[in-house]
Amino acid sequence: MTLTTEQSWQEFLRHYRELSDLRGIDSLLGWDQSTYQPPAAAEGRSRQMALLARLTHAHATDADYGRTLDALQGRTDLDPAQARMLELARKDFEENTRLPAALVGEMSEHWGRTYTAWAAARPGGDWDGMVPLLEKSLDLTLQAASHFPQYADPHDYYIGQSDEGMSAEVIAGVFADLQRELVPLVQAVTEASEPRTDFIGGANRYGQAEQLAFGERVIRDYGYDFTAGRQDLTHHPFMTRLGDQDIRITTRVRLDDPTDALYSTLHESGHAMYEQGIAAEYLGTPLGGGVSSGVHESQSRLWENLVGRSREFWAAYGAEFRATFPGQLAGVSDDELYRASNVVRRSLIRTDADELTYNLHVILRFNLERELLAGRLAVRDLADAWQAAYRDNLGLEAPGHQDGVLQDVHWFFGPVAGAFQGYTLGNIMSGQIYAAARRALPELDAQIARREFGPLHTWLREHIYQHGRLYTPEALIERATGAPLAADDYLAYLRSKYGELYGLNL
Amino acid sequence: MTLTTEQSWQEFLRHYRELSDLRGIDSLLGWDQSTYQPPAAAEGRSRQMALLARLTHAHATDADYGRTLDALQGRTDLDPAQARMLELARKDFEENTRLPAALVGEMSEHWGRTYTAWAAARPGGDWDGMVPLLEKSLDLTLQAASHFPQYADPHDYYIGQSDEGMSAEVIAGVFADLQRELVPLVQAVTEASEPRTDFIGGANRYGQAEQLAFGERVIRDYGYDFTAGRQDLTHHPFMTRLGDQDIRITTRVRLDDPTDALYSTLHESGHAMYEQGIAAEYLGTPLGGGVSSGVHESQSRLWENLVGRSREFWAAYGAEFRATFPGQLAGVSDDELYRASNVVRRSLIRTDADELTYNLHVILRFNLERELLAGRLAVRDLADAWQAAYRDNLGLEAPGHQDGVLQDVHWFFGPVAGAFQGYTLGNIMSGQIYAAARRALPELDAQIARREFGPLHTWLREHIYQHGRLYTPEALIERATGAPLAADDYLAYLRSKYGELYGLNL
Repeated sequence: MTLTTEQSWQEFLRHYRELSDLRGIDSLLGWDQSTYQPPAAAEGRSRQMALLARLTHAHATDADYGRTLDALQGRTDLDPAQARMLELARKDFEENTRLPAALVGEMSEHWGRTYTAWAAARPGGDWDGMVPLLEKSLDLTLQAASHFPQYADPHDYYIGQSDEGMSAEVIAGVFADLQRELVPLVQAVTEASEPRTDFIGGANRYGQAEQLAFGERVIRDYGYDFTAGRQDLTHHPFMTRLGDQDIRITTRVRLDDPTDALYSTLHESGHAMYEQGIAAEYLGTPLGGGVSSGVHESQSRLWENLVGRSREFWAAYGAEFRATFPGQLAGVSDDELYRASNVVRRSLIRTDADELTYNLHVILRFNLERELLAGRLAVRDLADAWQAAYRDNLGLEAPGHQDGVLQDVHWFFGPVAGAFQGYTLGNIMSGQIYAAARRALPELDAQIARREFGPLHTWLREHIYQHGRLYTPEALIERATGAPLAADDYLAYLRSKYGELYGLNL
Repeated sequence: MTLTTEQSWQEFLRHYRELSDLRGIDSLLGWDQSTYQPPAAAEGRSRQMALLARLTHAHATDADYGRTLDALQGRTDLDPAQARMLELARKDFEENTRLPAALVGEMSEHWGRTYTAWAAARPGGDWDGMVPLLEKSLDLTLQAASHFPQYADPHDYYIGQSDEGMSAEVIAGVFADLQRELVPLVQAVTEASEPRTDFIGGANRYGQAEQLAFGERVIRDYGYDFTAGRQDLTHHPFMTRLGDQDIRITTRVRLDDPTDALYSTLHESGHAMYEQGIAAEYLGTPLGGGVSSGVHESQSRLWENLVGRSREFWAAYGAEFRATFPGQLAGVSDDELYRASNVVRRSLIRTDADELTYNLHVILRFNLERELLAGRLAVRDLADAWQAAYRDNLGLEAPGHQDGVLQDVHWFFGPVAGAFQGYTLGNIMSGQIYAAARRALPELDAQIARREFGPLHTWLREHIYQHGRLYTPEALIERATGAPLAADDYLAYLRSKYGELYGLNL
């Protein structure tokens, strides 16, 4: 029996809907694991997740599904959204079917062993023991990429998995531009005098319930929809899609620093509003998600940094923040809150870094990945190269490898490639997108100062959110901003903001 | 290739472990649905659960799995636990494969339609509209049972699904004995004067956090293991197994009545301690669960009623309860707390009923089911028969069918059979098991008054919990108590307790 295009199309949608629902179930298992799961349940949960992964893989590589995709291939009666759905689904299918099962098994087993070894080696900074494991990881990374010869550079294969259409060469160029400007900028700012931060850290104490309620109040104003989401506590904050109308976020609380939970909440709400804003008809299809890690990060950073760390933000919320913590914040002005939210300090740890230094952490990792993949850097020399990169970029050296090359899990639980670039691509995009929004909304600053986020949210929904994965990241950025991706707007934003904050002529 | 018995056995265990893990995943989906899921997520979650149910059904009826079971059939080298595992697995497999797919589909579709209609009809008590749907339900109930001719009485087929080995005839006999004694007992007690309850209901207010903490404190003393479980809030309290080491409970809070949350917590902890006490080697096998709804309910009722509503319980916890709510409970004695926890009132609603009247609600439902299945009662006459049964047993008549025949969901979302008997079987068993424990532990009352629950918990673990589904319910009861199931101990407990409480010679 030959199916008509329409029948094949319906069968394709039905099957993809199931894949999407399986992924939602997996997200629930992961969410619960991080939020409420009792400690003794860990082993059983891992087994449940492995089983679900096997079932999902079987579903994603189902031979009938492959035939349905084949039947739709080359049809000319699909509209552009349908054609894009098919393109993405076919790419996923090939991704899932082209690697030999033996290699997939070997990788899975090796990543597991490497992760366990990393978790044990990290506290003591034992780099030497990790070298042979990471050498094998690099070998597997290159082997897997070799099955996708359409990528001349293996790095591009991995970058393409999370940042479609981006190439290592283009990213390297943009990052080099950024790095050249950032290093002296960080130098100048960190030599200037630090703002007042005596109300943060040390013996200061801010109630957890009040911190959480304040953050939730702000993101409700932003436009995060709590009827289709919620916030819970986890060790590491994240955003997760559990279903079409179920986009949850998590945060963490430091009792001595209420800005920690606040900015984590604002960050995750940006990811979540992107997901919540995708057109309803795309949900459960290949278009029903954020298009790349870079674009995703641009939305979290936009609401966290460009909105949330602005002078206007603190004009809008400073009084309420003080009223929430009257004892702790008596006599702290809106300006002081603004300045304290934008302290710049050189540091060794990426996840603790501020807006200005963060990108240097990412760029140096990206460059090291590139050298490893090209064979210009040997794994055994990676730790030294790491230290040299920190000296060059941030003027710091880690006292132990736990705060150096071993600090991030990424390279130790998967391929040694494509793990970091999205963060800085996102920062760059956030500057470019915000500049475009600002041109379209001349009253934006005043609106923010009045907690009037509707115009910005609507603009983002129209130009970014609703499209899901309809356009490639590059096309989306160009449509939304009128220009190809470039770091100029982002750099201009940093120069203007930090120049004013630190009284520098940047 | 022919597998050896050992290979077939390992394959059987592997497959069953996966089934067990799939059920754990389903339990998580259900748990989240009742606890934290945001409102807009409901539709998507239903679809996820339906998908998982299809995958689980496919796994449970897998032809290779059937062949593995066949290969093990008749082998004589299995030990008794293995033989029982195989017996239960084969019963499940036949249960899952014998019904024609068309009938399964028709039932699923009909239960869904009936549930929707019931939810709409219930608030207004619209019984007439439900009659044709329930007639069809009864027809499907009998059709499905006809595929299992080993049960002469279709009622037995449904009873056997949750209360293995019990028959309608035996249950009817035990229930008749109980009913004969309960009706005059309730009559006498409800004619006596009521104890003091002015500190409950009305304008009284008890903090939610304090209520929850108090209940959790008690069940920690009981022996509920919070490292392998947790308590959350839901509309209807329940216990659920999410994995080998993940047995969660839920409760609800009434701000005007702290005994509501407390006894709900104690009840669910009894279910949970049973599940937590199953021998580790049975988990993930057909033996890894409670053996029947009756035995399960015996454990929840034992810890809720026989322990939790005892004079010794309030001797142990009265002072701490008063200290938790000093304003609300000033001047309320342990004796008054004990008496207030054992108020008996005739009522229309099963789920609100007290220890003494509860069984009458169950027995009259069981008897109505029996008449329906035997064709002695027509569905169109069910509402009148319900009213007559309440008049005869409790001297009450529902002003509308929402508080009568439409009050429970059970008959309106599945077969009209086997839905209720487990509750009262459990109460009867709780009396018999507790009497046996008391004989084995002569100091039990004194131990409870000292919060020393270890001896009781250990006795229950040894005689009930650890065995999981190794023995049939009947065999388990007989092994644990030295006698076959009978209502004598339970009635003696009720007579002694309520006679003393209400100053009656019962």
